[in-house]
Amino acid sequence: MTDRLPIKMLHDRVLVRETREEGERRSSGGILIPSTAQVSKRLVWAEVLAVGSHVRAVETGDRVLFSPDDRFEVEIAGDDYMLLRERDLHAVAAERNDANTGLYL
Amino acid sequence: MTDRLPIKMLHDRVLVRETREEGERRSSGGILIPSTAQVSKRLVWAEVLAVGSHVRAVETGDRVLFSPDDRFEVEIAGDDYMLLRERDLHAVAAERNDANTGLYL
Amino acid sequence: MTDRLPIKMLHDRVLVRETREEGERRSSGGILIPSTAQVSKRLVWAEVLAVGSHVRAVETGDRVLFSPDDRFEVEIAGDDYMLLRERDLHAVAAERNDANTGLYL
Amino acid sequence: MTDRLPIKMLHDRVLVRETREEGERRSSGGILIPSTAQVSKRLVWAEVLAVGSHVRAVETGDRVLFSPDDRFEVEIAGDDYMLLRERDLHAVAAERNDANTGLYL
Amino acid sequence: MTDRLPIKMLHDRVLVRETREEGERRSSGGILIPSTAQVSKRLVWAEVLAVGSHVRAVETGDRVLFSPDDRFEVEIAGDDYMLLRERDLHAVAAERNDANTGLYL
Amino acid sequence: MTDRLPIKMLHDRVLVRETREEGERRSSGGILIPSTAQVSKRLVWAEVLAVGSHVRAVETGDRVLFSPDDRFEVEIAGDDYMLLRERDLHAVAAERNDANTGLYL
Amino acid sequence: MTDRLPIKMLHDRVLVRETREEGERRSSGGILIPSTAQVSKRLVWAEVLAVGSHVRAVETGDRVLFSPDDRFEVEIAGDDYMLLRERDLHAVAAERNDANTGLYL
Repeated sequence: MTDRLPIKMLHDRVLVRETREEGERRSSGGILIPSTAQVSKRLVWAEVLAVGSHVRAVETGDRVLFSPDDRFEVEIAGDDYMLLRERDLHAVAAERNDANTGLYL
Repeated sequence: MTDRLPIKMLHDRVLVRETREEGERRSSGGILIPSTAQVSKRLVWAEVLAVGSHVRAVETGDRVLFSPDDRFEVEIAGDDYMLLRERDLHAVAAERNDANTGLYL
Repeated sequence: MTDRLPIKMLHDRVLVRETREEGERRSSGGILIPSTAQVSKRLVWAEVLAVGSHVRAVETGDRVLFSPDDRFEVEIAGDDYMLLRERDLHAVAAERNDANTGLYL
Repeated sequence: MTDRLPIKMLHDRVLVRETREEGERRSSGGILIPSTAQVSKRLVWAEVLAVGSHVRAVETGDRVLFSPDDRFEVEIAGDDYMLLRERDLHAVAAERNDANTGLYL
Repeated sequence: MTDRLPIKMLHDRVLVRETREEGERRSSGGILIPSTAQVSKRLVWAEVLAVGSHVRAVETGDRVLFSPDDRFEVEIAGDDYMLLRERDLHAVAAERNDANTGLYL
Repeated sequence: MTDRLPIKMLHDRVLVRETREEGERRSSGGILIPSTAQVSKRLVWAEVLAVGSHVRAVETGDRVLFSPDDRFEVEIAGDDYMLLRERDLHAVAAERNDANTGLYL
Repeated sequence: MTDRLPIKMLHDRVLVRETREEGERRSSGGILIPSTAQVSKRLVWAEVLAVGSHVRAVETGDRVLFSPDDRFEVEIAGDDYMLLRERDLHAVAAERNDANTGLYL
């Protein structure tokens, strides 16, 4: 395999990574997998690292809100990442957003 | 993570919060999860805090009626919120509505 | 919460209430929940109180025929109501209908 | 409730009633409910009493062939009827049909 | 019920009857119902007696190939028939077909 | 039944036959049915004998690659054949194909 | 069967092969099949050998990221390959990609 092939997301895929704050709060590597369907309705935040060409509403650097059930996991160069589809994202936190909701991450 | 990123709902998502009245009546934090499918057909009200750009029929400040089965949960700054999709909302209570149904919340 | 917010049905939703006659005949509050799938194929009548803006074929005051399986339940100001979607209604009884079927409710 | 509200079928619904002949042959009131999925593939005939405004291929007075699995049941003025959707009807027997199949009911 | 109402198939329905040859080979009335899902993948032939107005590719008198799982059964005037949908037919054997496949029934 | 009716595939159906090589290698008549869902993900090759009029990408004489789960079985004149749909074919091996993949059957 | 028929992927299919690096790291032939649904959310990389004519976003020689659940397996000339559909690919690693994500395989 050629060394160092740049990676690009396909279609509507969004690559995200757990943020430091989330990680420290839970003090364990990786997302906690809920043990029941009911509990898995709790959404989590992660930071966007790359998006496919069909993705419209989020950008690299944004924080996005999603259900752990909708994620795929991948290890790249020894680090853990997650893959989502844009349609499964519920909200986005970003500096460019208007502050009119009064809600901040 | 940057401090205080404004949060925006995506697409057809609606962020709601249990109203004080609902909370006091039940005297417990969080929605009661029905134990059977049959019972879960009972709808509940909550207050709209933010809506995605595709949402047409409800606004911030409205009360909306929904099935607890259709909600996702998220904690923001220590408070509990719920996320819904507009298509899963059954009714809306708002001052701007005509009073012709004779039904009030 | 503001007092007395008028309630409006959304989209294709239809708010109905059990009619007095149905109630007296069964002599118990609330619809009887069939214990098996087979039995639940028996349809029931209720009176329309409000309809969403997409509803085309029924009006407030009509009686509509539906399967108890398709209903949601909601309590408003201490009274029990049911919520349906127009596509789940099988028939309508109303004064404005032609009497050509020879069937009356 | 107002006395004697005329009843109209909605959309693609078809109201049918078991014919006398079917009833006498089986000598019991109501359709026999097959005990297994396999057996329930046997179709039955009934007479059309009313059709919704979307129904195209059958008329009041026709006999229609359907699977008992696809029916809903309703009691009107003490008599038992069945409700079907046009798409679930397999065949129609009517005087207006050409006799070119050589099959008669 | 009126005597002798001609029967017409609706929409995409196809009425078929087991051919004599099939019947003799199996020496029993009615199609053998496979006991497992796997076995039920074996297709069978029957003769077309009537087709609905949406049917395009087969005609009365053709032999058609289908899965027993896709059939409904009906008794007309004491004889057993089967009802299929055109989309569930896999192949047709007819004199009008070109013989270029080299396969004959 | 008329003798020797030519058989034609309908719509998107593809009639295939196990090739001699496949048969000899396995030394048993008929495709081995995998015992678990996981194993059934292994694809097999067969030779195309006839195609329906909607089939675009394969021709009589081609070898096609498919999952045994997607096949139906039929016996014609004492020989065993399989029926597939074009959309369930994964690859085709034919002399007319460019050799640019470097893969040969 | 004719010797050496060139193989072509159909429609949206993508033929891939486990890369040497992946193989060495795991030191066993074939992809490890996860024992639970949860675990199977971990994505893996493989090298593209051939693509169908509908495939738009990946080319022969690319590395693609996919879920082992979405693969079919096939043996060609004694070697093991996998078949995927383009829509099931999450990301692509290739020299032609911009390096703006800062992620490399």
